[in-house]
Amino acid sequence: MKVIASSDNRIYKAAVQLKLKKYRDEQMKYLIEGTNLIKEALRNGGEIETFIFSEDYGSQAGMDHDASSEAFDTVKEAEHAAERSGASIIGLTSQLFRKLSDTETPQGIMAVVKKQALGETEFFGSKYNLDYRNQKDENSIPAGQSGEGKRFAPSNVVILDRLQDPGNIGTILRTADAAGYLGAILLKGTADIYSPKIVRAAAGSLFRLPVFMTETPGQTIDLLRKHKKKIVCTALNTDHYYYDVNLAQDAAVIIGNEGNGVCREFLTESDLQVKIPMEGTIESLNAAVAAGILMYESVRQQYQRSL
Amino acid sequence: MKVIASSDNRIYKAAVQLKLKKYRDEQMKYLIEGTNLIKEALRNGGEIETFIFSEDYGSQAGMDHDASSEAFDTVKEAEHAAERSGASIIGLTSQLFRKLSDTETPQGIMAVVKKQALGETEFFGSKYNLDYRNQKDENSIPAGQSGEGKRFAPSNVVILDRLQDPGNIGTILRTADAAGYLGAILLKGTADIYSPKIVRAAAGSLFRLPVFMTETPGQTIDLLRKHKKKIVCTALNTDHYYYDVNLAQDAAVIIGNEGNGVCREFLTESDLQVKIPMEGTIESLNAAVAAGILMYESVRQQYQRSL
Repeated sequence: MKVIASSDNRIYKAAVQLKLKKYRDEQMKYLIEGTNLIKEALRNGGEIETFIFSEDYGSQAGMDHDASSEAFDTVKEAEHAAERSGASIIGLTSQLFRKLSDTETPQGIMAVVKKQALGETEFFGSKYNLDYRNQKDENSIPAGQSGEGKRFAPSNVVILDRLQDPGNIGTILRTADAAGYLGAILLKGTADIYSPKIVRAAAGSLFRLPVFMTETPGQTIDLLRKHKKKIVCTALNTDHYYYDVNLAQDAAVIIGNEGNGVCREFLTESDLQVKIPMEGTIESLNAAVAAGILMYESVRQQYQRSL
Repeated sequence: MKVIASSDNRIYKAAVQLKLKKYRDEQMKYLIEGTNLIKEALRNGGEIETFIFSEDYGSQAGMDHDASSEAFDTVKEAEHAAERSGASIIGLTSQLFRKLSDTETPQGIMAVVKKQALGETEFFGSKYNLDYRNQKDENSIPAGQSGEGKRFAPSNVVILDRLQDPGNIGTILRTADAAGYLGAILLKGTADIYSPKIVRAAAGSLFRLPVFMTETPGQTIDLLRKHKKKIVCTALNTDHYYYDVNLAQDAAVIIGNEGNGVCREFLTESDLQVKIPMEGTIESLNAAVAAGILMYESVRQQYQRSL
């Protein structure tokens, strides 16, 4: 493995650029970091273009024997994967690696990954979805649920209406993936999901969960109508509790911005307004928790129907 | 209002100490920051000992007329509250205030608040709970739920088993409060809930939700048995889905550490092991999301029972 020691190196410079959204958008690539995420990418068909190792990967201070041996396995796995896919592998001096890393105590392994780029048909098309997702896990119906090969909530989408907090956004993507939603629609103004913090919080879900970007609430609403999704918003002044309405199928659950909530256009055009009951004077839940409660209500309802 | 300009001032020095857990434990006090939290404290009976204003509060650069007028109201409210309770009010030069503040763009208002100090009887005693919580909100049954004055899940507790992430911990306290849980038990090893980040993420719930600290899993288990709570843990290798078991009453929901999950003692002694179904290869949800899904299942079940 060639070890790059100069910050003028072309490959290194291109990787460093990916720390900025502008270049992630231009190159349609992003960075992932750490053994777990690299393994998730390999397991779930994430398109790795370059594996990047620190020269001291696997032999850092304080690393025990197990960790060293795991690191060795990861290098082997990367080499095999690179051989199959044509990805390249580079080494960096530990100094350069630290500059590229987004963490305080880098694990010594990163990768450049191609972004998903799904068209409308691919995103909404169940064929794509089933192909895309089935190849990546041995399907996963909870024992006791009927319908082999059936996903939890394969016709539901979650819409991120200009969320800002990286932790919230990553957590919502992770939860949508776990709840078996079709995918996530990201409205322009939502923080870049390929930023290091969100990639980390999403914990591998970016490789599995289909995502689609929209420009305006109007465009999003047209798209949802075209694909026969019910627009579901949370609101305070409604009589419907979220567990009283049908969230099992074809629901498009809108999650509003942390400060301002769901925007007016979605509220006006919503097919269902629901509330999550809250004690006393409390006005809201954390956005990721609210999203989790609503998306798992879809899972619960699907389960109840299958009994 | 006296404006303190010296960092040697006794009151100022005592306040600065509260940035450290050691002194929060010693003094049994903590700091809160920002107009919203101060208002929550005033509204919910948080015991404020000292109001701390920056000398430029209400006239900071970039503040519009509405914000200025809200700041003026907050000062008035603080003065009234101080008169009633005997709290003191101090001013700080903006330089000293910035040193005390935990935020990058301080709002110019903070307070020293006494910690809750509940004994076992107060924490578990329904009388205390009803008194404590009823005085703080005009009760809050969702329309359509039977049983006036009934809380959502007043016999349930959530146990934080050595959680570390401040955002997760604050969010779980906020959700437990919203779901009408009796309170939260914090096992030693959980990050200090009176640290600035957790206080912020809890968004006022620290003034409403009873909390109780325990030293060991063993002590916690004895306590839960004594008060007839079912110990509920999440686990991967169980046949019970969380929506298939009774979480409506007397459930003690254990939320495990982000990295290691629920500790062995709780698992061994658990009355119920439940799983949250997850698609494919996903191994876990974010701890705060998992807690939210479980606690709101209690709310949903209570509601179903009341129909």
